[in-house]
Amino acid sequence: MSHEHPHAAEAAGGRRRPRVVVLGGGFGGVYSALALEKLLGARDDFEIALVNRENYFVFQPMLPEVISGTIGVTDVVSPIRRLLPRTTLHLRDVEAVDLERRRVVLSPGFRAHAHEIEYDHLVLALGNVTDFRGLTGLPEHALPFKNLGDALTLRNHVIRCLAEAAVEEHDAELRRELLTFVVAGGGFSGVEVAAELNDFVRAVLPQYRGLRAEELRVVLLHSQERILPEMAESLALFAQRILMKRGVELRLKTRLAAATGTAAVLGGGERIMTRTLVSTVPSSPHPLVERLGLPMAKGRVVTNGELEVEGHPGVWAVGDCARVMTPDGQPAPPTAQHAIREGTLVAHNIAASLRGGVRRVFAFKGLGKMGSLGHRSAVAEVFGVRLSGFPAWWLWRTVYLMKMPGWGRRLKVAIAWTLDLVLPPDLVQLRVGGTRGLSREHYEPGQEVFRQGELGDRLYLILSGEVEVVREEKRERRVIARLGPGQWFGEMAILQMTIRSASVRCVAPLDVLSLPREEFGVLATHLPDLRQRFDTLAAERQRAPAPVSSAVVGGGPARDVGV
Amino acid sequence: MSHEHPHAAEAAGGRRRPRVVVLGGGFGGVYSALALEKLLGARDDFEIALVNRENYFVFQPMLPEVISGTIGVTDVVSPIRRLLPRTTLHLRDVEAVDLERRRVVLSPGFRAHAHEIEYDHLVLALGNVTDFRGLTGLPEHALPFKNLGDALTLRNHVIRCLAEAAVEEHDAELRRELLTFVVAGGGFSGVEVAAELNDFVRAVLPQYRGLRAEELRVVLLHSQERILPEMAESLALFAQRILMKRGVELRLKTRLAAATGTAAVLGGGERIMTRTLVSTVPSSPHPLVERLGLPMAKGRVVTNGELEVEGHPGVWAVGDCARVMTPDGQPAPPTAQHAIREGTLVAHNIAASLRGGVRRVFAFKGLGKMGSLGHRSAVAEVFGVRLSGFPAWWLWRTVYLMKMPGWGRRLKVAIAWTLDLVLPPDLVQLRVGGTRGLSREHYEPGQEVFRQGELGDRLYLILSGEVEVVREEKRERRVIARLGPGQWFGEMAILQMTIRSASVRCVAPLDVLSLPREEFGVLATHLPDLRQRFDTLAAERQRAPAPVSSAVVGGGPARDVGV
Repeated sequence: MSHEHPHAAEAAGGRRRPRVVVLGGGFGGVYSALALEKLLGARDDFEIALVNRENYFVFQPMLPEVISGTIGVTDVVSPIRRLLPRTTLHLRDVEAVDLERRRVVLSPGFRAHAHEIEYDHLVLALGNVTDFRGLTGLPEHALPFKNLGDALTLRNHVIRCLAEAAVEEHDAELRRELLTFVVAGGGFSGVEVAAELNDFVRAVLPQYRGLRAEELRVVLLHSQERILPEMAESLALFAQRILMKRGVELRLKTRLAAATGTAAVLGGGERIMTRTLVSTVPSSPHPLVERLGLPMAKGRVVTNGELEVEGHPGVWAVGDCARVMTPDGQPAPPTAQHAIREGTLVAHNIAASLRGGVRRVFAFKGLGKMGSLGHRSAVAEVFGVRLSGFPAWWLWRTVYLMKMPGWGRRLKVAIAWTLDLVLPPDLVQLRVGGTRGLSREHYEPGQEVFRQGELGDRLYLILSGEVEVVREEKRERRVIARLGPGQWFGEMAILQMTIRSASVRCVAPLDVLSLPREEFGVLATHLPDLRQRFDTLAAERQRAPAPVSSAVVGGGPARDVGV
Repeated sequence: MSHEHPHAAEAAGGRRRPRVVVLGGGFGGVYSALALEKLLGARDDFEIALVNRENYFVFQPMLPEVISGTIGVTDVVSPIRRLLPRTTLHLRDVEAVDLERRRVVLSPGFRAHAHEIEYDHLVLALGNVTDFRGLTGLPEHALPFKNLGDALTLRNHVIRCLAEAAVEEHDAELRRELLTFVVAGGGFSGVEVAAELNDFVRAVLPQYRGLRAEELRVVLLHSQERILPEMAESLALFAQRILMKRGVELRLKTRLAAATGTAAVLGGGERIMTRTLVSTVPSSPHPLVERLGLPMAKGRVVTNGELEVEGHPGVWAVGDCARVMTPDGQPAPPTAQHAIREGTLVAHNIAASLRGGVRRVFAFKGLGKMGSLGHRSAVAEVFGVRLSGFPAWWLWRTVYLMKMPGWGRRLKVAIAWTLDLVLPPDLVQLRVGGTRGLSREHYEPGQEVFRQGELGDRLYLILSGEVEVVREEKRERRVIARLGPGQWFGEMAILQMTIRSASVRCVAPLDVLSLPREEFGVLATHLPDLRQRFDTLAAERQRAPAPVSSAVVGGGPARDVGV
């Protein structure tokens, strides 16, 4: 090969330098690598690699501001490459870690071969993930709020809802759904999202002709008696008052039980009709961390005070994926300030292991807690002092601005904040590719999958549950069929490129697989079997469009009726 | 319904006001609506609606700057709603125009029903589209550069190529492909894209460990003798010198003949191996405009001097989709300055039609032409004066800054440009959703679809062309099968979740449909027929893995051999 590569020296010069591999590019991972680079200094006696899916570090505390566009999309993130000039960056997913052979297996890039990196020391800094698995309808219909992509998706979705509501003249129900926004989870993250979302929709409202402030609903669901369980009661109550004053509806002692495409289903069975459901809970361990077989407690990797995993010398863990004990005997909370200190300590201890030296024990007690309420208000507890309202907000901005890595970005954020004081909020909707392909959907009884007269845009396969097919003729509604697991519906309007000849309504909690018309078209063209199957089905259903009483259909195997 | 809607007044008060509907949110459409709003004034005697897919107006001349991130992603666009407070905005695709019944049919929104708007006057301002249809491999593998989504996609792709090349230690060929960037088309758009792309990759190079400047290749293909055919020869030659000095390879009198996933195939058969091929040509009429049955010339709607379509009173056309004659007897070129003047004139003439008044005729002669070469250089011809280098660049920036709608945005762009002088280029890669689903791919003879030993990530169906299946055992390569149209390959590694047991190489120009493993998995789980078909196929191929000489397979119908 004509080019230099990272190991060229080792190939020529013999034994390679020890390598530290950091997995994850959040606060824990990036600050570990930053501290390692500092310790590396002129000695240059080890090398550092960092694996992260994205090429940027997200400044998590400011993520909710992306919703309102207060600060620019790219100001809330820093390119990792710039922060870590001496670290080799791998922009891949981690597929596996071979603890025996001390190798990390990465997902394939442009060519479909896996990529392996050997390590001498491994720092697990993978954080946690929002995991909706096992929650009815949430994987299909709830929006998570964890990374920059989530924040942009939510912003775009909210802008689309406002735009569609503004031109929806005929369907009052749809209009209400579009103007209702539900956030589940009253911790820091949920409260900040609800506050920013509420500020945003109310600030841009005057730009939408025909929308009125009374039509907007922002609802925050929380399962406990008060929000912000991490904070003192007085501050939480302050936050509740502020949110309510701004128009957020608080639903306390209320659990989100399920979701559909048009509703948040609450614990008691009540449904809030909405097209926007954000859930900031629950968070789960990173799936890779779970598979490693390391000692775990409450979903976090147990480390000793030096941040090394007991029984696995050379394997370290920091940040939200690590269970690290603080001096007061409590596990460190999953906050940026703890992750940063853990990163610095793990770097020191790794250097001590490599060079010989004294390892240190984690002794950070935490500085305090802060949560933004948007619109120049916040709550904070710092060194035991409680602040709320504008002073807390000012402190919040100042602390985070100083914590941001790099003067360039600080400058940009400071300018953006200043401009925000004088300019109206930005409304640009940034869509980048991404059509909805094959997907799963969940429906609750009473909900319509589609309505007679609508355009046929998707085809459905019932995975579980039951629907009834209802035809309306001369103002009379007749149930013409019931369909269950393994049966298809919606193919007729697709095959014949026409409108739906009947409505389909869910009668028992329903999970379907749905396929858009275009993808079905491509598959049907090239898969003669598939095409034939549907032609036969359509022919059968055409021959038997006569009304079928629900009594007849309900009992035996359902008859196929085209819609 | 409890809410007000745009037609509430009319329903109550009787006859509705005349409505002007503008289709398209580029320079022509937005400036038509701006001028209409101004004319509307206090009389408020008509209403305005605008239909556009996106909620923002793209300031097209600055789009190439998104590649390098010189100005923020959202600074190059303005929310249409803010620009046009008195216009009703519909964020949909236009599906059809019923010229008889004077209605526009829009694509469905959240519910699958079409949305119709009646009009009294219709302004067609749909611009043109980049159309790769009929060009071998371009629809599958070339990147267009027309809208903000294209610019972001290109930026993200380029950043990914650099990142992957930086860690590619083993495969010199892949590394070269990743570091070669090809732009086809030497008009304003292609030249600006090549210049910005070249500036960007060279500016960020120092941040990539292990990449050297000599490895970077940016190639500009142009079919004629010199680039920028719209400009005087001396300026075009100046531009060529500047580009070459900065490291852009110019390939003049060179046509792009075809594209594959790894190469730009040139007219003479030469292939430039690359993973990045941008094509700014050819542009075609908007498909809707083509279908309307209006008088057309060279893909543009023919209007009279007043911008009305002959024989269709109340139907007007402006901008790139309109063929408007200038006073010198030439059709107006497709530039922003012409579209803006056409928008103003069409608004005047529509108001004159509605209120009674004298219509005017298009009499704008053009001010001049400018093209940026990036990095503080440009070429310009203004009022007959030719400028190049820094003065042209300064003029370019000043003129466009003043043309941008809204002071807030001007301020933001001016600040971004100022910061750009002192801060290093931004490297953030903004990915928003979008996994690659069912897709088509094109291959040329000699190219590999996949290699033995790679991970099985996709399944392929041959639409046309031919491949050979090659197995390597003990350093011996044997062709074990040839496959043709209608045959599948790649299923074995997918079904058995293992690595490819053979390589597949294209022997005759090949078009395939490819399906990712995950989608195939979901379909196979729920479509027993499909699953069974592949299980049978796999079983047959397993039973017959014995070598098949290419002579035997080449003649008769190809035998299925699993890979």
